[in-house]
Formats: sequence, structure tokens, C-alpha cells
Amino acid sequence: MSDTSLVAPPSLTTDALLRSRAEAVVPGGMYGHLALPTLTGIPQYIERANGSRLWDVDGNEYVDLMCGWGPVILGYRDAVVEAAAEAQRAKGDCLNGPSPVMIELAEIFVATVEHADWAMFAKNGTDATTMCCTIARAKTGRKKILVAEGAYHGAAPWATPNPTGVPAEDRANRIPYVYNDIESVRAAVTDHADEIAAILACPFRHYAGLEQPLVDEDFARDLRDICDEIGAALILDDVRAGFRMHHGSSWEPIGVLPDLSAWCKAVANGYPISAVTGNDDYRDAAASIFVTGSFWMSAVPMAAAVATITELGKRDAVGRMAVVGEQLRAGIRASAERYGFAVSSTGPVQIPTLLFTNDTKYQLAKALSYEALARGVYTHPARNWFISAAMTDADLDMALTGLDGAFQAVRKAYPDAS
Amino acid sequence: MSDTSLVAPPSLTTDALLRSRAEAVVPGGMYGHLALPTLTGIPQYIERANGSRLWDVDGNEYVDLMCGWGPVILGYRDAVVEAAAEAQRAKGDCLNGPSPVMIELAEIFVATVEHADWAMFAKNGTDATTMCCTIARAKTGRKKILVAEGAYHGAAPWATPNPTGVPAEDRANRIPYVYNDIESVRAAVTDHADEIAAILACPFRHYAGLEQPLVDEDFARDLRDICDEIGAALILDDVRAGFRMHHGSSWEPIGVLPDLSAWCKAVANGYPISAVTGNDDYRDAAASIFVTGSFWMSAVPMAAAVATITELGKRDAVGRMAVVGEQLRAGIRASAERYGFAVSSTGPVQIPTLLFTNDTKYQLAKALSYEALARGVYTHPARNWFISAAMTDADLDMALTGLDGAFQAVRKAYPDAS
Repeated sequence: MSDTSLVAPPSLTTDALLRSRAEAVVPGGMYGHLALPTLTGIPQYIERANGSRLWDVDGNEYVDLMCGWGPVILGYRDAVVEAAAEAQRAKGDCLNGPSPVMIELAEIFVATVEHADWAMFAKNGTDATTMCCTIARAKTGRKKILVAEGAYHGAAPWATPNPTGVPAEDRANRIPYVYNDIESVRAAVTDHADEIAAILACPFRHYAGLEQPLVDEDFARDLRDICDEIGAALILDDVRAGFRMHHGSSWEPIGVLPDLSAWCKAVANGYPISAVTGNDDYRDAAASIFVTGSFWMSAVPMAAAVATITELGKRDAVGRMAVVGEQLRAGIRASAERYGFAVSSTGPVQIPTLLFTNDTKYQLAKALSYEALARGVYTHPARNWFISAAMTDADLDMALTGLDGAFQAVRKAYPDAS
Repeated sequence: MSDTSLVAPPSLTTDALLRSRAEAVVPGGMYGHLALPTLTGIPQYIERANGSRLWDVDGNEYVDLMCGWGPVILGYRDAVVEAAAEAQRAKGDCLNGPSPVMIELAEIFVATVEHADWAMFAKNGTDATTMCCTIARAKTGRKKILVAEGAYHGAAPWATPNPTGVPAEDRANRIPYVYNDIESVRAAVTDHADEIAAILACPFRHYAGLEQPLVDEDFARDLRDICDEIGAALILDDVRAGFRMHHGSSWEPIGVLPDLSAWCKAVANGYPISAVTGNDDYRDAAASIFVTGSFWMSAVPMAAAVATITELGKRDAVGRMAVVGEQLRAGIRASAERYGFAVSSTGPVQIPTLLFTNDTKYQLAKALSYEALARGVYTHPARNWFISAAMTDADLDMALTGLDGAFQAVRKAYPDAS
């Protein structure tokens, strides 16, 4: 399996020129979660993509394990999704009101997601998590939200992991708990009895740069029970995991239904839309708040979402991503063992996180990503990856061969690392 | 000019069925600024649009004076913008990083907007206004923002005009002033010396349902001077007016440049994108905050924005919208006078607001909108309208003839109204 030939790193000449040109007109050159300011060995600028493949601006081709950081779930430029989007585009996109497709999309969410009696749509994942909090506050008349320490729920002032420029008041109603530690939740509930509007949780612990354990099933069930006891909303932040872990709400397989869920990334295979789903207990509260955006009713992303959710079901996309993800994880573990590295591969297999155990500065992780790129595999050294259902067996072979060669190369470069 | 024939109202049978169907799966049936829950005589659902024309789901055709509530500025499905979007779409949209078009768009903003040394991009207008506040706070180390009473700056918790479900803390750092009243600004500055991060202002006073006077030029200049004196940012919220009042920042014609501006609606002729522009004094602060969104780097809206801003300049779109808007305003005033109504038509002519003077419950305004729809003219009774550069002389004639007929019909229905 290993690729023992010498491999030259991809040329990133054009990428470097673009990074330099951007410095003049964009603060810091780039910003946000796609920014790679110190990772100059990873292409920052992307030229094009198709299916499971991506091309950087220097013409290098990769099998892609990032999927646009999550939105691409059926593969880039999926024919069925693009046809649905084009049919709507020929009629119109941003209009004076919604197109009928808005209702169709809400009906599909209600039919597909077990806890959902209704749906609302927005643009950002942050719009959706914020709306869930506002709806929970409107319903309960309380203001505190329990938020797991280190959890990412968006980049609005109340949520951003870097609170530069954010007044303390904007975060005053966040109460911390520790993911998978129910006693920390009980302690927070005791301290803030009658003040808690909601408990906000991700389907798995997805902290940047750290291992990402799955939820403890008893912990999830206890969260549900505690919310019922204190009359607070259980909010599931399915922005990152939604439709990758399950064709429905991500905790349905363990029998835990939230009151409210936030959706975004994969809902429309890359078209910009987010959603909130909720049960009937929260319907009136949802109707009582005022939220909106210039493009929230745009019809093309809704048509793309209808096609995406439909195709995800038809193709058993979750099943395919699980098969590919299991084989990727097994192959990575075998390669790491072959070359004597201690690694962890955590999170759902469809959203895997690979970390070297003894690598606090991500030196080995960066080297692995660079070596993988040289072998035509696009990954990120410190963030979770995303698998799409477009991954063929040949793509998987290419990814595993490239990663095995990358592990071998890292071993050569770091002969003493463990 | 007047149309004295009897006119039947448009059939809205399908629209009514869709409104009813939506009730089951969307809280309240619809939400946000496009919702028309009590205005059942105005089509809520839109089937398609092209150029200056719009068709509702019952097949009625209208000359459109709402333009998707602002985003449509060159006309629906503009051929040049659509070709640019399609060319980018063939390469990819939501990718692992930005496309080079991100840099091109930032360069166009810097070249077009006088105060802009840099640009950043997001999805919602609210993202942009919030980012401006965060950048101002990061730069100044202060937290208070002066916000005009009744001004709309978005629908995030700190900004939404209906604070249901919003804790008081989220709005604790808003300090009110009265638009066009510099003494109210000076009083707020005196009360909060050394705490003020920014003064936030719209290019004109756009309060829902009220007259929308233009800015007093001395007021704008005094805001600039006060910000300079106290070391606070002047933020111009150009979300609604941007590129309609001027091909650049909206206060350039009066010589007042903000430090930071928020842009959204018309930037990409309906494609979803918002932007922040700023000067070099705020560049480091802008680079120091963390903001992002799943679709903020999507390339298709950026390609559409490059095409839109370029075409707006080439076609002198602001000039065309001003000509059409002036003729529309003159025609409306003539019709109102002809049928004995006291009306005000305020705001920039490209973003006009028509109100009956003696009509506190909008009874006459609603009747006028309904009668205009019956004559093929889509308006809103209580919000500002938007003119696009796609309006031909024939469209304008149709709009003026329809509105004149509508005024006449309202006079017949309300013989004693003034």
C-alpha cells in the first residue's frame, strides 16, 4: 500500500501570489475558519471542484476530505442538485416573497426530522443557533443558556471563540458545563434554578484541535430529562453534523429528541441556507420573535435543499459515508501503526478528526497534511475532516495510498517521533 | 393619464392556498420582513420574475417597485450578472477556501468606495452591521454604540426592532440618539464620555411606516467631527441604500466619509453577500476579530458582485434610477393632487416612501396598494419601495398609469378622505 517513491510537494506559486495580493485589500489577507495564514503549505485559494475532486489555483488536483468544510455532502456540483437549482434560477431567486418551494422544504424537514413539527430558514449556522436561543427565551421567559466549554456554536458576539471586540454583556447569559459530564450540568442547574432557558449541545464534542469523543448516550438522555424537569429547551446544534450522522436529527439513533435544532452546512450541498426545526411546544414562541435577512427567502438555495435532502435519502448517503469513513479510519490506524505513530481518530467516521498523540504543537499533523497534499489528498492538520457521499472506492484507495505514503514520509522526516 | 375603467382585483386563489398550507409547517405561516400576514390582498408567494417584471403564483404580472426588497438593482436575472455567476458556478461555489474572485471583489470595493482601504465579506446585512460594531470596539477598547431611535440595523438580538426573547444585556450597550438632531448626539456623548466605540447612522432616516427625511448635511458633517474628537468610529449602515444613492458610499456626495460601512442588499443583484469596508485606521482591528460563516467565502455571489458593481458603473445605474425615481415621485404627487389627497413622498427618489398624510392606520395606503396591484403595479403600503435600473420608460408609464388609476379608485371608495 505504501508509496515509497519520492514525492515533490505541489507547487503553490500562484497561491502565494494571491495570498500576497489579498494582504492589500483584506485585513490579515484572509479571515474566518477557512483562513490558513500560517499553513502556507496548504492551498488557500481554490480554482474549481467536481464530485470528490478539487483543484487549487496552481492546477494541482486532490481527492478532497474537507468538502468545503462541511457543506458539500453529495459531492461538488452534484447533477441532481444543480438541475433543481437551475430550474428555480430560471424562474427567480431573490423575490418579493418566498417561492412555493419554501413550503415544500419545510414539509421535507418535518417529514424527515423526527422532532420537527415546523421549520424556519436563515443563511448562517450562527443565525440558526441564535434563533434557537431566542425562541427558547421567548417561550420560557428566562435568559440563561447552558453552553459546553470549548464548544463552537458560531461566530456572533455571544458565540465567537475569540471575543476580541465583544462586550462582556453579550456573553453574560452563557453558563458553562463540561460535555459528557452530567454532574457539571446538574451543578449549573442548581446554581441557576429558574433562570435556564435552554441547554445547548452538539451531537458530539467538536472542539477545535482536540479529540472529539461521541456523546455518552446516558449523558444525552439525562440532558433530555433535566430539560423536561426544569422546563427548559434542549437545543441540538446540528449545524456541523446534520445529515452526515443520520438522515434526520443526529441523536435519533440513540432515542433523544431535542425541542429545537439548528441546521446549516450540508442542507443544500453548498448552497447557502440554514434552518431551525422545532416541536409544537415551541411553535408560538418561534412565531413571536422577529428575525430576518435580505436573502433568507431566496428560492434557489431552497430548491437545492429540497433536492439535497431527497437525494441523501434515495442514495443512503449516510450509509455510504459511514462505509467510506470506517475504511478511512481503519486504513489510517493501520498506516500509523505501520510507521510507529500513536494517533487518535475520533468523532463520527463521517466527520473524522486525526491527531497525533504526542504532538502538542501539531508539528507532525502539519507534516502529514503537507505530505498528503503532495500525494493528492486534501486534509487539514488540526480540524475535523468531512466525508462526502461522492467518494468512490477509487477515491478511497487514492486517499489511503496518499495518507500511507504521507505517514511514511513523516517517519523519514521525524525518525524519533512517537 | 387616469384609468377610469373598472378594474377587477387580481385573483389570489393559489396564494391563499399556499398561505394556508404554510401555516402547518412554518410558525405563523411566514416571518421576517417579507411576511404579509394581514395584507392578504398582496401576493405573498412569487412564481417568477424577469427584468422589471414579477409574476405571482396566480399568474398575475406586475411591474415591480419592490425589487426583492432591495437586492435587485439591475433587474431580475440580469444577463451580464447571470453569465458571470454561471461561469464561476461551472468552476465551483462553496470550496475549501476562497476563489481568486474574492480578491477581485475586495479590490473593486476599494476602487469604488472612497473611504475603503479594505473589504470583508459575509452573508446578512446584520452580519455586516455587527462586524462594524465589533471592529469599532476592538479598535477603541470601548463598548457603547450610539444608535438612532427607531433605526433598523438588522435582526440580531442587539438590533431587532422586536426584542421578544432578547435579554436586556444584549442591548445594554446601545445608546439612543435622534436622527438629524445633533444636540441629542452631543448629549449622549456627554453622558457616556470615554465609553463610545462608534456612532452608527443610516444614509437617510429609514424608519418603518414613517416619513424618511434625507440626512441634514450639517448633521452628517457634525457626526464626522464628533467621532474625530472623541476617537470613535463613524459607521455608515449602507445595507439598504448602498449603490442606489451613489456609486460609492452614500455620503460621498456630501463629502462625509465613514470609518466603516456595512453593505448588503444590492451588492450582487440578488445573490447573497454582504460586506464591510473600512479605512486603514481600522484594518488591524478588523484583522483581530473572529467572524465567519459556512458560506461567506462562496465564490458565485462574489462573481455576481464583481459583475454587478462593474455594470452599475458602466450603465450609470444611479443616474437612471434617479431619473425614474424623480418622474415617479412627480407623477405620484400629480395624481394625489388630482384626486385631492395629501401625501408625502420622502426618502431618496431611488428608495421612495409614499404615505398619506391623514392615514394613521394605513387604510388609504393599503387601498392604494391593492388598487395598484389590480392595475399591474407591485408596491408595499407601509415600507419604502426600491427602484431598479431595469425600469424602462414603458415600465414607468405603466407604473404611473396604474398608480393614477389606483388613486382615482381610492377616491371613489373613500370620497371623504383627505
